[in-house]
Amino acid sequence: MEKFFEPKSIAVIGASRHKEKVGYAIFKNLLSSRKKVYPINPNAKKICGRIAYNSVLKIKEDIDLAIIVIPAKFVPEVLKECGEKDIKNVIIISAGFSESGNEKLEKKLVDIALKYNIRYIGPNCLGTINPHQKLNATFFGKNPKKGKIAFISQSGALGVAVLDRAIEKGMGLSLFASIGNATNIGFSEMIKYLDKDKNTKAICLYVESLRKGKKFLNVVSKIKKPVIVLKGGMTKKGQEAAATHTAALMSENGVYTGAFKQCGAIKTESIYELFEIGSYLSKNKPIKGNRGIIVTNAGGAGVLSADAFEKNGLELAKIPKSIIKKLDKELPMEWSRSNPIDIVGDATPERYKKTLDIIKKGNFYDFIFIALTPQKMTNPKKVAKILVEFQKKSKTPIFSCFMGGELIKDGKILLTNENILNFEEPTYGIGMISKMVK
Amino acid sequence: MEKFFEPKSIAVIGASRHKEKVGYAIFKNLLSSRKKVYPINPNAKKICGRIAYNSVLKIKEDIDLAIIVIPAKFVPEVLKECGEKDIKNVIIISAGFSESGNEKLEKKLVDIALKYNIRYIGPNCLGTINPHQKLNATFFGKNPKKGKIAFISQSGALGVAVLDRAIEKGMGLSLFASIGNATNIGFSEMIKYLDKDKNTKAICLYVESLRKGKKFLNVVSKIKKPVIVLKGGMTKKGQEAAATHTAALMSENGVYTGAFKQCGAIKTESIYELFEIGSYLSKNKPIKGNRGIIVTNAGGAGVLSADAFEKNGLELAKIPKSIIKKLDKELPMEWSRSNPIDIVGDATPERYKKTLDIIKKGNFYDFIFIALTPQKMTNPKKVAKILVEFQKKSKTPIFSCFMGGELIKDGKILLTNENILNFEEPTYGIGMISKMVK
Repeated sequence: MEKFFEPKSIAVIGASRHKEKVGYAIFKNLLSSRKKVYPINPNAKKICGRIAYNSVLKIKEDIDLAIIVIPAKFVPEVLKECGEKDIKNVIIISAGFSESGNEKLEKKLVDIALKYNIRYIGPNCLGTINPHQKLNATFFGKNPKKGKIAFISQSGALGVAVLDRAIEKGMGLSLFASIGNATNIGFSEMIKYLDKDKNTKAICLYVESLRKGKKFLNVVSKIKKPVIVLKGGMTKKGQEAAATHTAALMSENGVYTGAFKQCGAIKTESIYELFEIGSYLSKNKPIKGNRGIIVTNAGGAGVLSADAFEKNGLELAKIPKSIIKKLDKELPMEWSRSNPIDIVGDATPERYKKTLDIIKKGNFYDFIFIALTPQKMTNPKKVAKILVEFQKKSKTPIFSCFMGGELIKDGKILLTNENILNFEEPTYGIGMISKMVK
Repeated sequence: MEKFFEPKSIAVIGASRHKEKVGYAIFKNLLSSRKKVYPINPNAKKICGRIAYNSVLKIKEDIDLAIIVIPAKFVPEVLKECGEKDIKNVIIISAGFSESGNEKLEKKLVDIALKYNIRYIGPNCLGTINPHQKLNATFFGKNPKKGKIAFISQSGALGVAVLDRAIEKGMGLSLFASIGNATNIGFSEMIKYLDKDKNTKAICLYVESLRKGKKFLNVVSKIKKPVIVLKGGMTKKGQEAAATHTAALMSENGVYTGAFKQCGAIKTESIYELFEIGSYLSKNKPIKGNRGIIVTNAGGAGVLSADAFEKNGLELAKIPKSIIKKLDKELPMEWSRSNPIDIVGDATPERYKKTLDIIKKGNFYDFIFIALTPQKMTNPKKVAKILVEFQKKSKTPIFSCFMGGELIKDGKILLTNENILNFEEPTYGIGMISKMVK
């Protein structure tokens, strides 16, 4: 598997001189990788200044990885040549196989790979990126920065959207792979590899179908890194769409939901959730229990947060009497005297600090959720500073929900820079937190 | 009711010279309204250059609206004075009534109002804003721009967050009112007024409890403007929190859900949803049916969209054979031949246009959902232009989901400027669309 992500020499079968072609985009991306890259194209003498070969068989040096980007019908023949050249790792970008009804053509690939002991990614995929090796083996023209999240996508086009968003948000990736129809290398092989990859701390998957469900279950059960899944085709209509897309096999939703639960994978409901949770778990341990404490200066935000706790199976931690007594001394008469701890609309940053200092002494909760709206005495940036300092000293996970616009902007930026996960509003955020509980 | 929102003369009981006080903030906001504003404060001679009065009874001119912002225990006395001065409209900002366990004190207000025929908003509220009159009768220091959405909130602090966000996003409001404990003027009175208000096209509510449920039902059933509700305290834990916040009465969730459905109010799940739907319905009619058509260049996005359709009770419109034939002529062989219409990863803007032009001819769907990821041939900005042109000619609602980062940015801006609702990802967006179907 290493040769997919750390190859020393690469052949691009279908490399092109024409800028509008996929074969040009991939070759160009690879040229900036400082690897040995060989263009294969019988109709060109040179491509981007490199001598082009008729076939991989014409190259004298060893090739670690071949990337195939030619029309589907020619793929079996060149895959065979890869076998003859003793290339064991191949990425097949080309589309036009089972997803377009050409099952027979796809079967040929499976057989050739078996015969020559080739492992391939694809067909019908976008390729792979390893930011830690500056290796971009896709036709996507930009590079995400180095990070700790691996993303394996069955859909290339969703992969592109995610890469583009990751780059905009400054989110780093450890590895990216689009595995397309996945008739040889599937999720299980990828996850096994990622478990050993020292750069990867969390594994995000976009799955349309698992051809080998039991194998997936076994692999995910055994690994210690968090696996976060977005499953497309969870409904009948979605499955029908998936069948035309990556030739995914039909199966019961219940089977997937049950299987994910059983093996400890975290099932998410949207692309956004997949990456927020992946990002959090790449830097933090899962939350150790479901007892949360809400601190807020806004009664309404406390109510919505409490609603979201109950809807998502989280528990409002019961505040011990001794802690209530201490809070009574520091907080104004109108405070809520229960969880959510409503420290009232005129709460200063100092009042947030005092409250946190008091509850810090008790061992009655697993995480803290701060809901804030920008009122007269609030000073969101100072509150953000207090939360950051608290997080540095305490091992308890702390999440925030600063609600508003301009007035909370500086506070939000500070929180994000200091790795406190801030949500725009409580309902959605608390749903996400519930999925990060161990 | 008009005098709450279009008063000619206003007395601020508790106006203050001290900048950190709420009584200063309100008085200052009102001074810039170009209304006659009188400060009432027995301990000051002048406030911001205006002669201060001992009591409203000392003012010779008629007063349309009094705003009370003094400690709770003094409120009944000054409310009485308002009655004697024949002031019929009062906003009671002061907190410390039933929400803090002082039911008796609150009962006094109810009785005095009854005796003098006073209508009051509050107590325990933030006040009101009428951008069309440049009237800011709250202690919030900024002004939202004129718009078509009215927002009535039982929570002042959530109100602040929403105002701040509205200002940042450039979202206009027709009216804002925080009604707090709502022991006199409640949602029903507000909605009745808003139904007649020519500036208001959609009514958004944050509700913690309805003291007069049947009245609410009756009023909402009769009005034609869309009413969109976020209900806090839908769970047991949420209700307990609401009880300490606005002294909301406990009630069954089912009762609320059923009631909202019966009277045609749209129930939302988050602040974000409340305003996205409110904003859409303030400018557009509800969608006339639940049959949607998905057009996408990304198979995975099509799968997730189809999943969201089914989860939210939307129907994937069946494409008539005649339309399929026409599409066959224009689209590449690999297109999905069903709904979602997957026009394949290399789709150009022109291909989007051709697809829309063909389906435009059929009457088999109620809305269009465009899911796009930024691939090699995509050109998101040109696709956005095509959608804008399509929307201008067609009466069919069109929604979009441009997924990605930098590459889709220009397209997204164009869509937003031209009033096409664009979602960041399909799951959440389609949930929202389902609530806008008539």
